[in-house]
Amino acid sequence: MRVYALTLAYNGKNYCGWQVQKNGVSVQKTVQNAIEKVFGESIDLCGCSRTDSGVHANGYVCHFKTEKFIDPQRLPLALNTELPRDICVKQADLMDEEFHARYSAKGKEYVYLVWNSRIRNPFTEGLAWQYPFEINVEEANLLAKKFVGKKDFCSFMSAGSKITDTVREVFDFKVERDGETVKFTVSADGFLYNMVRIMVGTVLKALNGNLCVDNVIDAKSRSAAGPTAPPEGLYLNRVFY
Amino acid sequence: MRVYALTLAYNGKNYCGWQVQKNGVSVQKTVQNAIEKVFGESIDLCGCSRTDSGVHANGYVCHFKTEKFIDPQRLPLALNTELPRDICVKQADLMDEEFHARYSAKGKEYVYLVWNSRIRNPFTEGLAWQYPFEINVEEANLLAKKFVGKKDFCSFMSAGSKITDTVREVFDFKVERDGETVKFTVSADGFLYNMVRIMVGTVLKALNGNLCVDNVIDAKSRSAAGPTAPPEGLYLNRVFY
Repeated sequence: MRVYALTLAYNGKNYCGWQVQKNGVSVQKTVQNAIEKVFGESIDLCGCSRTDSGVHANGYVCHFKTEKFIDPQRLPLALNTELPRDICVKQADLMDEEFHARYSAKGKEYVYLVWNSRIRNPFTEGLAWQYPFEINVEEANLLAKKFVGKKDFCSFMSAGSKITDTVREVFDFKVERDGETVKFTVSADGFLYNMVRIMVGTVLKALNGNLCVDNVIDAKSRSAAGPTAPPEGLYLNRVFY
Repeated sequence: MRVYALTLAYNGKNYCGWQVQKNGVSVQKTVQNAIEKVFGESIDLCGCSRTDSGVHANGYVCHFKTEKFIDPQRLPLALNTELPRDICVKQADLMDEEFHARYSAKGKEYVYLVWNSRIRNPFTEGLAWQYPFEINVEEANLLAKKFVGKKDFCSFMSAGSKITDTVREVFDFKVERDGETVKFTVSADGFLYNMVRIMVGTVLKALNGNLCVDNVIDAKSRSAAGPTAPPEGLYLNRVFY
């Protein structure tokens, strides 16, 4: 069997997330349909993780197995012809037989985009979270650094997750400004459900002096943390293997 | 009478352009409705120029007259509450009585965005033109400079315009690259119908060695120029008064 890995970018606005759901169109099903059309056979498509409804990706990785051969250099164009314009295959690679998009992943990087202005931006609608209060990027970076390391991130997991081991290692968490766009970039060996969005919500609440990040981490309780930032600002940026 | 000027940003994707048309929703009508709701009276809204279907604006200027007073500092928020999320009032100003968005304009600046990659970008769909061939920005700037000055731009006007004086002064025309995004910025005392889009199409065709810009200008004929670049990359960026 051959194992193909695909690296995708997608605008999650019109999808119910990666995973196939009863209601709504999923990215997984949409990409699987395109692969099946190009390869002329049924395939199973495995993703590197779930993404929520409205969440985007710059570098989502998924894999599938087939006996057939199509040149990986030519595969993106063939698949993109079959895909809607809000999903795009950036790269295709032939992998070792034991490669698995989810289980081989050593970590991931997410980006969270904020449009930091009282005036909304018609061009970032659904692509960034409009946050009207001033963000001091220097202070935000000091707070972000408190997340770095191997810690119990229990406070940063939404209710409803079945996960019991809530220890993760955050490799880096930084905040940058480019005009009115503020970009949060966080990498870790793994993420809990809604972890990045709660981290961003917590940093912003702490900036307004209403919260102490160290206390939130120590509390090991979701109720101690800030609000969950909305999905439209979140991008799965890279997967490390 | 008071004269209010509004500076707008809008994503033109869902509009038939600025001007009221028989078919399709216009930006003009949409903004006029919001103003009438906020001021509680009928008004006439005058724009600085027409924009085509699918064309965007970062700094479109329009004006209207009223006897009523609303603090221009508070007006953007009041209007934005009534506007759809793809149109936004960035600024409101009280002007002299003789101000006219169109007739007082001394010039305009347009931006044209190209996504320069063989792989499409789900996040710039409808916001930039995907152009797969390499653009050498240094060479593009040499070609762009040939447009600067007071010239007859007859070759860069689409058929169907009633304009007879086709002389315009181009103040500046430059090309910049930021990753895979190539940005054309052109300012002039005025623009002919589709002029920016034909200029961009001509520069790109000339880069491939299939056209000589000087000859195109001298020809004074639309058929000598390159193709009209599609509307989705074009932004009315600024109006000079």
